[in-house]
Amino acid sequence: MLSVVYRGKGDFALLEKPVPELLDEKDAIVRVTLSSICSSDLHIKHGSVPRAVPGITVGHEFVGVVEAVGRGVKKLTPGMRVAANVETFCGECFFCKRGFVNNCTDKNGGWALGCRIDGGQAPYVRVPFADNGLTPIPEGISDEKALFTGDILATGYWAAGLGEIQPADAVAVIGAGPTGMCTLMSCRLYSPALLIAIDTDEERLALAKEKGLADVTLNPLTCNVEKEVKALTEGRGADTVLEVAGAKSTFELAWRIARPNAVVCVVALYDEAQVLPLPDMYGKNLIFKTGGVDGNKCEEILRLIRAGRLDPSFLITHRYALKDAMAAYELFEGKRDGVIKVALVP
Amino acid sequence: MLSVVYRGKGDFALLEKPVPELLDEKDAIVRVTLSSICSSDLHIKHGSVPRAVPGITVGHEFVGVVEAVGRGVKKLTPGMRVAANVETFCGECFFCKRGFVNNCTDKNGGWALGCRIDGGQAPYVRVPFADNGLTPIPEGISDEKALFTGDILATGYWAAGLGEIQPADAVAVIGAGPTGMCTLMSCRLYSPALLIAIDTDEERLALAKEKGLADVTLNPLTCNVEKEVKALTEGRGADTVLEVAGAKSTFELAWRIARPNAVVCVVALYDEAQVLPLPDMYGKNLIFKTGGVDGNKCEEILRLIRAGRLDPSFLITHRYALKDAMAAYELFEGKRDGVIKVALVP
Amino acid sequence: MLSVVYRGKGDFALLEKPVPELLDEKDAIVRVTLSSICSSDLHIKHGSVPRAVPGITVGHEFVGVVEAVGRGVKKLTPGMRVAANVETFCGECFFCKRGFVNNCTDKNGGWALGCRIDGGQAPYVRVPFADNGLTPIPEGISDEKALFTGDILATGYWAAGLGEIQPADAVAVIGAGPTGMCTLMSCRLYSPALLIAIDTDEERLALAKEKGLADVTLNPLTCNVEKEVKALTEGRGADTVLEVAGAKSTFELAWRIARPNAVVCVVALYDEAQVLPLPDMYGKNLIFKTGGVDGNKCEEILRLIRAGRLDPSFLITHRYALKDAMAAYELFEGKRDGVIKVALVP
Amino acid sequence: MLSVVYRGKGDFALLEKPVPELLDEKDAIVRVTLSSICSSDLHIKHGSVPRAVPGITVGHEFVGVVEAVGRGVKKLTPGMRVAANVETFCGECFFCKRGFVNNCTDKNGGWALGCRIDGGQAPYVRVPFADNGLTPIPEGISDEKALFTGDILATGYWAAGLGEIQPADAVAVIGAGPTGMCTLMSCRLYSPALLIAIDTDEERLALAKEKGLADVTLNPLTCNVEKEVKALTEGRGADTVLEVAGAKSTFELAWRIARPNAVVCVVALYDEAQVLPLPDMYGKNLIFKTGGVDGNKCEEILRLIRAGRLDPSFLITHRYALKDAMAAYELFEGKRDGVIKVALVP
Repeated sequence: MLSVVYRGKGDFALLEKPVPELLDEKDAIVRVTLSSICSSDLHIKHGSVPRAVPGITVGHEFVGVVEAVGRGVKKLTPGMRVAANVETFCGECFFCKRGFVNNCTDKNGGWALGCRIDGGQAPYVRVPFADNGLTPIPEGISDEKALFTGDILATGYWAAGLGEIQPADAVAVIGAGPTGMCTLMSCRLYSPALLIAIDTDEERLALAKEKGLADVTLNPLTCNVEKEVKALTEGRGADTVLEVAGAKSTFELAWRIARPNAVVCVVALYDEAQVLPLPDMYGKNLIFKTGGVDGNKCEEILRLIRAGRLDPSFLITHRYALKDAMAAYELFEGKRDGVIKVALVP
Repeated sequence: MLSVVYRGKGDFALLEKPVPELLDEKDAIVRVTLSSICSSDLHIKHGSVPRAVPGITVGHEFVGVVEAVGRGVKKLTPGMRVAANVETFCGECFFCKRGFVNNCTDKNGGWALGCRIDGGQAPYVRVPFADNGLTPIPEGISDEKALFTGDILATGYWAAGLGEIQPADAVAVIGAGPTGMCTLMSCRLYSPALLIAIDTDEERLALAKEKGLADVTLNPLTCNVEKEVKALTEGRGADTVLEVAGAKSTFELAWRIARPNAVVCVVALYDEAQVLPLPDMYGKNLIFKTGGVDGNKCEEILRLIRAGRLDPSFLITHRYALKDAMAAYELFEGKRDGVIKVALVP
Repeated sequence: MLSVVYRGKGDFALLEKPVPELLDEKDAIVRVTLSSICSSDLHIKHGSVPRAVPGITVGHEFVGVVEAVGRGVKKLTPGMRVAANVETFCGECFFCKRGFVNNCTDKNGGWALGCRIDGGQAPYVRVPFADNGLTPIPEGISDEKALFTGDILATGYWAAGLGEIQPADAVAVIGAGPTGMCTLMSCRLYSPALLIAIDTDEERLALAKEKGLADVTLNPLTCNVEKEVKALTEGRGADTVLEVAGAKSTFELAWRIARPNAVVCVVALYDEAQVLPLPDMYGKNLIFKTGGVDGNKCEEILRLIRAGRLDPSFLITHRYALKDAMAAYELFEGKRDGVIKVALVP
Repeated sequence: MLSVVYRGKGDFALLEKPVPELLDEKDAIVRVTLSSICSSDLHIKHGSVPRAVPGITVGHEFVGVVEAVGRGVKKLTPGMRVAANVETFCGECFFCKRGFVNNCTDKNGGWALGCRIDGGQAPYVRVPFADNGLTPIPEGISDEKALFTGDILATGYWAAGLGEIQPADAVAVIGAGPTGMCTLMSCRLYSPALLIAIDTDEERLALAKEKGLADVTLNPLTCNVEKEVKALTEGRGADTVLEVAGAKSTFELAWRIARPNAVVCVVALYDEAQVLPLPDMYGKNLIFKTGGVDGNKCEEILRLIRAGRLDPSFLITHRYALKDAMAAYELFEGKRDGVIKVALVP
């Protein structure tokens, strides 16, 4: 079967691979019906994900149909439509028991799919710990609506949950890319009275506003964001800040626009270390929450999609057949044609 | 000035009283622009509020304009539009410091207005601890929208907050009267995936649904509510139950429709003791939260009204001039003409 | 092998039974080295545990050595010393994932051992879900110290955790029997400034004080407990109350000695329904937490025993050989000779 | 009266000043009975506290007797013994209402005493917001025991509270100086099973162990701390880390010895910015809590001292008369004679 394979730094290729088989009793085989390209795939391509294993098929954001399950799988049966979770996890170790599934200590725990083992940019994929790595899609939810459940939407949902947002709060999200959009829509679930989207891309800001994901949008290229945020919050700053952009300037902006005693969630993936100017912020009593998604809320996310309270399908701006994946990557990497997310149809 | 006065059990009358004056440096005098009749006023009339002092002017839900403030008032100045809080509180005692303002130990703490001291069904009213008992109304919010801020909306908002609702939960609210409606709209702020309104009044259920305050409505007269709730929740029951009706049958329904380990908020005012069948519910591990509103979130409520996330103004079904208050009471008590809430215009 | 068998209401007998074998891949066989008699065993004997199955071996509080494990058991190997957990649970269902293991939906979930399946008052016992139902005993902890880990100490530990105790709080525990003692020592872990033990048995109160488990002891037979508690708390009442006695009078005492906005944990097993006088307590804003232990903290408990912060071994007042179990039951049921807990040596 | 005055960078002197008088109705005048020298006083001396106002009397950690109170003071009367709080605060602003009193927006809010207004290294001192800035000392507590309530003990108590410590956790405290010792004893209140003290000073480590404030002590000069902490925690790292030392090396050590998903409290005062190597710690999902004490728990601290659960008086290694304050500073700054804390007797 045709698969998008990471051959080494800078080298992705469409290659033929055998259809996967069950290897463990907790495995499932999934026939992929829709997958997507994620910026993490580009990180792998550029060699900046040290854990990525050359030779694997990429793809960690996909939906499909269960084809076969091992005898230890309890919640899934062949024929079920499922959303894949970027993180597969054992559910039994010290970290899993506490909900910290990103730090599952199993060899297949955490981000394995499309990174350390074959992923979903292919017609079929083997998913370990299938009861935890796959979530049944409730009736009435299209593949498009469910596609982002296990990765960017899980991340936004997790980040918003970290933010300790109370109703009526003022919340700022830095970065209105795909994950930023998912973060914004997840913040809405907590009913801030003021939700601010910050980005340098006016089109994305306009889209965030059009989709009801932001009350106010601010562009650092055209305004003094710190000053504006303070003006909107009686001089205090935001109650919660979520940094989803990952640059030096946005890291600094994050703590500057936070009010004293705010929660600052640093959920972006950074290429380099950042400076934490503790003397400058002493007495500001900020809480910084760092890290990557704990993907154990996919069931909740799908219930909210079914209830109409979450819908990230508008992020799919382009669709390609899997056989044209290389062109899709080119478009996505080049950020051409207003692309936000690309869906691949096997 | 004309005032609605509680003269003793069963006896309300419109009487002339002098315009109030500042008595304490933390007082404010408010010119009432709109007040409402609350079911608690009827409780006073029927003699079932032992703390109510004969001779006082009733009315604890109103909005107005600040006329004068004592020298210890810091946040208010004459001319400001304000919403009154059913609870005035010192802000400094053991309970106030912990946010439990309903148990403020000051003699004017807790529910004083329109119960132990003159209230707002009159053209003017003196409000103690004005910085805590009055909240400025942000620009652009009409009196109608702000009217319920300090009592029934504060109660619904507090009850929803007690419920520990997580996004995607299943939440059931028993009672779709005025406070029940405010509870439903406050629960929405926490984004349950399933919000169930339960009442025996089909019109109110229809209204709840029409206003988007319920995903499902259930009428105990026409269905087996326990069975239906379980069918909607994979056999478990609701994650959170809010009992806002106050009858023996609804108290029992509350714990029956709760799933194991649920939070059951018993926020209704009961006329009699209830039976807690601990052997029947042993192992169900329920949490019961009882009591009356802590009214210290009026600022947040008004911010949410301004942001368009809360709007209880549709509850006002009738308007009367203050001079016709007795007719208004008759209508409200008789539950005629589809009345939900009556507004009084001084 | 000789086993204490529940033959029907009122009928316990020492009978010969075959040594158990592994039935499921998650089972373990444990050679019991010490077990104890629990008041729940008496509840079974008296027919007041409807779920108890006639013919089963009783005993749900024991320690031993792993003899054999199924192939699905991951954390245990033969030869390990283990403490049994009153609750065996799947770890994967809706409730287990949320930590509510008492409501595990598996047929062997919750209290099965010595109730619905053969328990530990025998030389050998089969334990389902062995990874969750057994906890390795760290080196240096005697059987006597570890014996109560999975039942009465787990219950006291869970109850104290429910109580939301903050350092410096005033905490009252009603009932200084074996579970009450375990609750008192668990409350100490949260460093209340005032820990009050309440019981009608002066010897137990004296023991609680001698062991440092109470700062103050109160006997309802010789003082007005409500008045005393208020005198000790500036008139307010206790911040947290834990009701471990299970009578009508103690249920009422529990909410009376609680301060407004207190947490009242009703963890005793009641034989009958209780009256919740909501009108009397309206405005007191109490939180009632009801139910039975979630036994998922045995590892933490054993770490605290090893660290010297918990030690319930003094509760063992009597030791019997298993062959003399009937005499042991007679003593325990008759509450003779100052018995608190009886240990059975197979 | 003789006072220790900050005259400018590098310049402290004993000068005569007039006895202070009430300036505001919420003020109190306190006759100081014991004060202490704090490392923050040295920070002022060295010019590294920009907010410090030349000409003020230093001293923010002291106990005394109320001499006079303004008419707005409610909880204090002349003759009461009181402990001073490093932070005076209004109790009414946005931050105070949320417990974030360190960010009180009043001009006298936060750290004013001995920094922006005259402090307690003098026979008399004026304390603003006296109801919040002074706490009555319960009977039976000596000045020595109460002396550190409002500053270093408040800081340790606040830091331990930030740490989200659960019973049985593994907790590491970096820095065993005076504040570190107070942090260790406050962590004990939450009953970790393993409490680790880390410092380069063997004498202080020995003292921590002797006083029961640490289960294990580690010295970075003589062992690989990261390796040791992991060996003590099954390879994971500490559940909570409290950084009270304030150096580059200790900041890095803090996040290195933390397990994934740990809370790292950065409560030390840093002279320079630190590096947060987000790529190195990505996926470790750490929470960093930064800042300075919120001093609103002095009443709780004094209750725990009275109950015998806290006692920092052993930290006083030296006593000087106020007139010899310059010699005391010399000793303290020189870290001679095993000095930990110096008490000044007016």
